[in-house]
Amino acid sequence: MTVATELDSPHAQGTGAGRMKALVYHGPGKRSWEDAPRPAIKNATDAIVRITTSTICGTDLHILKGDVPSVTPGRILGHEGVGVVTEVGAAVTAVHPGDRVIISCITACGTCDYCRKGMYSHCRHGGWILGNTIDGTQAEFVRIPHANMSLYLCPADVDDEALVMLSDILPTGFECGVLNGQVKPGDTVAIVGAGPIGLAVLLTAQFYSPAAVLMIDLDDHRLRIAREFGATTLINSADGKAVERVLELTGGEGVDVAVEAVGMPATFEICQSILAPGGRLANVGVHGKPVELHVEKLWDRNITLTTRLVDTVTTPMLLKVVRSGKLQPSRLVTHRFALDEVMNAYDTFANAAKEGALKVILKSGLAN
Amino acid sequence: MTVATELDSPHAQGTGAGRMKALVYHGPGKRSWEDAPRPAIKNATDAIVRITTSTICGTDLHILKGDVPSVTPGRILGHEGVGVVTEVGAAVTAVHPGDRVIISCITACGTCDYCRKGMYSHCRHGGWILGNTIDGTQAEFVRIPHANMSLYLCPADVDDEALVMLSDILPTGFECGVLNGQVKPGDTVAIVGAGPIGLAVLLTAQFYSPAAVLMIDLDDHRLRIAREFGATTLINSADGKAVERVLELTGGEGVDVAVEAVGMPATFEICQSILAPGGRLANVGVHGKPVELHVEKLWDRNITLTTRLVDTVTTPMLLKVVRSGKLQPSRLVTHRFALDEVMNAYDTFANAAKEGALKVILKSGLAN
Amino acid sequence: MTVATELDSPHAQGTGAGRMKALVYHGPGKRSWEDAPRPAIKNATDAIVRITTSTICGTDLHILKGDVPSVTPGRILGHEGVGVVTEVGAAVTAVHPGDRVIISCITACGTCDYCRKGMYSHCRHGGWILGNTIDGTQAEFVRIPHANMSLYLCPADVDDEALVMLSDILPTGFECGVLNGQVKPGDTVAIVGAGPIGLAVLLTAQFYSPAAVLMIDLDDHRLRIAREFGATTLINSADGKAVERVLELTGGEGVDVAVEAVGMPATFEICQSILAPGGRLANVGVHGKPVELHVEKLWDRNITLTTRLVDTVTTPMLLKVVRSGKLQPSRLVTHRFALDEVMNAYDTFANAAKEGALKVILKSGLAN
Amino acid sequence: MTVATELDSPHAQGTGAGRMKALVYHGPGKRSWEDAPRPAIKNATDAIVRITTSTICGTDLHILKGDVPSVTPGRILGHEGVGVVTEVGAAVTAVHPGDRVIISCITACGTCDYCRKGMYSHCRHGGWILGNTIDGTQAEFVRIPHANMSLYLCPADVDDEALVMLSDILPTGFECGVLNGQVKPGDTVAIVGAGPIGLAVLLTAQFYSPAAVLMIDLDDHRLRIAREFGATTLINSADGKAVERVLELTGGEGVDVAVEAVGMPATFEICQSILAPGGRLANVGVHGKPVELHVEKLWDRNITLTTRLVDTVTTPMLLKVVRSGKLQPSRLVTHRFALDEVMNAYDTFANAAKEGALKVILKSGLAN
Repeated sequence: MTVATELDSPHAQGTGAGRMKALVYHGPGKRSWEDAPRPAIKNATDAIVRITTSTICGTDLHILKGDVPSVTPGRILGHEGVGVVTEVGAAVTAVHPGDRVIISCITACGTCDYCRKGMYSHCRHGGWILGNTIDGTQAEFVRIPHANMSLYLCPADVDDEALVMLSDILPTGFECGVLNGQVKPGDTVAIVGAGPIGLAVLLTAQFYSPAAVLMIDLDDHRLRIAREFGATTLINSADGKAVERVLELTGGEGVDVAVEAVGMPATFEICQSILAPGGRLANVGVHGKPVELHVEKLWDRNITLTTRLVDTVTTPMLLKVVRSGKLQPSRLVTHRFALDEVMNAYDTFANAAKEGALKVILKSGLAN
Repeated sequence: MTVATELDSPHAQGTGAGRMKALVYHGPGKRSWEDAPRPAIKNATDAIVRITTSTICGTDLHILKGDVPSVTPGRILGHEGVGVVTEVGAAVTAVHPGDRVIISCITACGTCDYCRKGMYSHCRHGGWILGNTIDGTQAEFVRIPHANMSLYLCPADVDDEALVMLSDILPTGFECGVLNGQVKPGDTVAIVGAGPIGLAVLLTAQFYSPAAVLMIDLDDHRLRIAREFGATTLINSADGKAVERVLELTGGEGVDVAVEAVGMPATFEICQSILAPGGRLANVGVHGKPVELHVEKLWDRNITLTTRLVDTVTTPMLLKVVRSGKLQPSRLVTHRFALDEVMNAYDTFANAAKEGALKVILKSGLAN
Repeated sequence: MTVATELDSPHAQGTGAGRMKALVYHGPGKRSWEDAPRPAIKNATDAIVRITTSTICGTDLHILKGDVPSVTPGRILGHEGVGVVTEVGAAVTAVHPGDRVIISCITACGTCDYCRKGMYSHCRHGGWILGNTIDGTQAEFVRIPHANMSLYLCPADVDDEALVMLSDILPTGFECGVLNGQVKPGDTVAIVGAGPIGLAVLLTAQFYSPAAVLMIDLDDHRLRIAREFGATTLINSADGKAVERVLELTGGEGVDVAVEAVGMPATFEICQSILAPGGRLANVGVHGKPVELHVEKLWDRNITLTTRLVDTVTTPMLLKVVRSGKLQPSRLVTHRFALDEVMNAYDTFANAAKEGALKVILKSGLAN
Repeated sequence: MTVATELDSPHAQGTGAGRMKALVYHGPGKRSWEDAPRPAIKNATDAIVRITTSTICGTDLHILKGDVPSVTPGRILGHEGVGVVTEVGAAVTAVHPGDRVIISCITACGTCDYCRKGMYSHCRHGGWILGNTIDGTQAEFVRIPHANMSLYLCPADVDDEALVMLSDILPTGFECGVLNGQVKPGDTVAIVGAGPIGLAVLLTAQFYSPAAVLMIDLDDHRLRIAREFGATTLINSADGKAVERVLELTGGEGVDVAVEAVGMPATFEICQSILAPGGRLANVGVHGKPVELHVEKLWDRNITLTTRLVDTVTTPMLLKVVRSGKLQPSRLVTHRFALDEVMNAYDTFANAAKEGALKVILKSGLAN
């Protein structure tokens, strides 16, 4: 689906041919902040949202490398955002123009078999489509299909920076890492990867009072941040001895939960090597290659391994925890840019290690 | 621990130096039905059981190939059995001499951290030790450690042949396949492997009223048995098109549950290729090699993969279902031998395909 | 909301002022099969369904006694039905004109906090409204709000009589009785009340292979039907000794699950008196008075007591089980009437004991 | 079973007729700190523990009022304690003389059907027997049956005062209140009763990061303590408006979880009146009379009500949380007495409100 096609639709014509600025993908390695048609209502279930805050995801960098073939040149990127509703279709009842909303990275029709099971990630009419198969949120405006299910009203007492972390990174860490890992009070949890997503796992794992959280990464700076965020043990895996070290620390037993938050064979290997009998391996990382699974060792270890694309079904729960003050998502924010500095923001985020970047905020200065 | 050592113990001397017949492993490829010392109480938690019925497990064949290094020459094989208690140690209160009992393939102390979690398979003082690190049940008598937890009283109204299927094969199929696969009413379940263990999965999966059970195997004879046992669709995978066929039958969607009941890379591969989003892959097979896990395809499919050595925690539940008539375990029995024909019984079981063998019963004619 | 108001709406005018026949409530004890305005689309999420099959619920009798104050004179009754979609609002995408559909007794917006949790019963824009606060299904046509979530496509290979049991009675028995009672393989289950709803519990409890199902009622005819439907023990409680008898049959232990399917203090009392430690009491009955709960006896018995208005979240699962042949809902049907004989049908259903009536089918002969 | 009988047993004679001091019940209102026979091993599964720290439970006061008929004159009271093992029976392998141990208030054989299900509270050979049907822990020494399952090794780095809270009060609050109430991140939880047990619920509820914990009591002093322990809202129910106030605070919705921690009809009434649809009522209080359950209002509210005698199955988990520093049980301790001042300690504890007493520690100064 291309922007041109959208403008061709009768609905779109009805709402006028405004223009806006947006970050457009032009094929591997190419992006620009440019003029683009302002989106219009296409279906009765759509809403248009003026973006006030957005951010960049690791997945956006993958797209720019050309690793995500479903994203074609011309696509406006971005699947995270907070904004203000400017227009809604006839069937939208849950939000209204003027409402401040969180945009979920996952679009859910709410009606299909997967949505009924709480698997919005596999919605037959949605899933991850924003900034992927339809235009996304790194723009002044965005069209959100199935707005009733895919937008969440913002509580007045929480700021945009915190709320934009609920678009993707916090539900991803929580659902794919913590819930799938079945973290329980007293557990020993290892998180492999102290990037933004690993840190989101770390923050939300603490909802369940694990006794110990071991953070494993190659970067001492990120490990130091993990310490501030509540990790109880830091392991720099640069020496290739992370497995040995975890087993040592757990009396040879291994951990209750290992969370893979990188997406590489080597980190997956660490996870499967440190599980105690009965342990859970929750994969969060996006993988580009198969991994070797040691069933010859694990077949009798009573382990559970899970994969998951975030469903964002826990967004209402996370909002309650954020409002209660027990979770401060903005701790993940390291850099702030104006929305029209998004080209620089990408440069900073792409050099995350050097820049000490976690989440990079894009902030609109536009009036409506 | 060897038989010799056991006889050296003061306890053993106290209960007399009786003799018996037993199936003894003498290294790869070598076994004999021979004279052996009759076991005696060694610890206060032991019981001695006179075997009335035993059977042979696929694992016993692995041992004979030399694939299980923990089994050393001189070991009496077998971890399944029904019998009559002849003697108990001072701390045994749950069973008494004269009681007819099922011997669990898993020995559980009941007290360690794993037992307290219901993971008897990883009991710190037990687990799978019978016919492995201590002498087993293919003998006239066997010593059962931790008898309070590891023996189950037989209901008078169920015969030995049915009950000996509760030693290992039925709880294995049920716990590792059905419970771990979370089979639910209306589910579509695929079982890869129609050997005894796959058929045990098939029988117990029906406790939960799945809408369809697809049985996949290379052997038409076994598939026909699967049909009689309740499989709704049979797929002979000899043509290499099993995956294609399952996807066709499920409208391209895949199955809710795939149970691996073989233990080979090729069958594991089928399982991971036929899972619907949200599907569960329950591994039951014993693997000798790693497998390739396609996380590059599965990372966003919300799947759950489990491994498990049977815990036999469901033995009491299975006993209730057997007594209610809703499960007829003796359907798995194809051949019967006297206990002292065990050498022939092994030959038959080792040629299962040719002989049309599933479970082979060994029946004692001994008076006490 | 009255019929007059609906005709006043602009939408309604658009679809013409057709007429139809319907069963209208005119205050306690008064009902008539009369001419009424044919419903029209009011909201973009509505569908109009031409009823082909409907039925009468015990709740309809309660309404006629004046026991349900939310139902006001002029209301068309009925909340169960199968039919054909004749018209849909702009936002309806899950069903289309011509589709044969099951009408859920529960209307669900799919978007509110309760719907997101799977508690459609408490939908903020729906719940049980059909034949209650809006016009119902005992009519030639009905307007179904939130049609995307509240209608289910009928499989071609299942007939109307079976499917109309999925509107209310089967999901009610299954969700409120079986799921809330956590029926497991091997369990002993007691169902108090062998009316249609108790029998629906009985049919669906068998999805989970309980070892024994004890049916308790005052009516031997209904108990005989329960036997045919799979009850293993029948107890006529007319002698006031049901509790005694259950305890006797369970060796003094009590049952794992007691399902209250009547809605009276006396039957609730039986349920709480027969629970084993750890037992679950699943209330399905509609109660008009408080009951005495014996916490002085139960506080240390580790019991779980649940109440539930059916959510109909399991309709897709039930459809799969029906299609697989493992559930034959039409076994609940004892009488059949043409839709325009609904006055007689009510008479029969109101004398259920005398007439031997369970579910009474109303069948339309109308062409579209 | 009386002390005299115990001394008559052959085992008892073997270990000598030592004497000790103990708190003995002599019928309603009568207790004394007196000379008593020192307990001896009776069964192979027993251990003798020298008490170093004990405490008094609300249940002990009930016993002294004559409310617990199973407790007969001559009984040594007390079911909580930390001490040092002095002797073990032949079948005790989990603890050894010299080990510092927590005594669980629940004795569990580990083998019976209830123990296998994790319902130690209903152990067929144990349950709550200490200071009830056998002599208890408010003494210099105590005999602990089924020591393998009923004693827990103390970590060296946690002091007695913290650990004695794991005998009863913390697992009771956690299991009966928090686990049964299914407290989840973001939940609104109301605890009715800010006595020691309600405060134990409050401390352990925070393992799951509820958004709000409302504490309801008549005593402002206890409410102030609740604030320090993490309650977010305090409600003094003296004005009879607690229900109104809770509904007001929750926007008319009610709470997700209501925990009854008193054991009176009036407090139970509050709990059932403040539940949101889908809410859980976890009863922790010990009730002496039935309550009125408003099924006429609750039948369609999808609520879950639980009762539970503590099983102490979570003691290992709680130990891990205590060691991690996330739970500081000794915050419950307000008063300390020498063990031989136990008569004064009872006076203080019996006047808890006036004395500002929560848990009262009894500390032995004895050398072995």
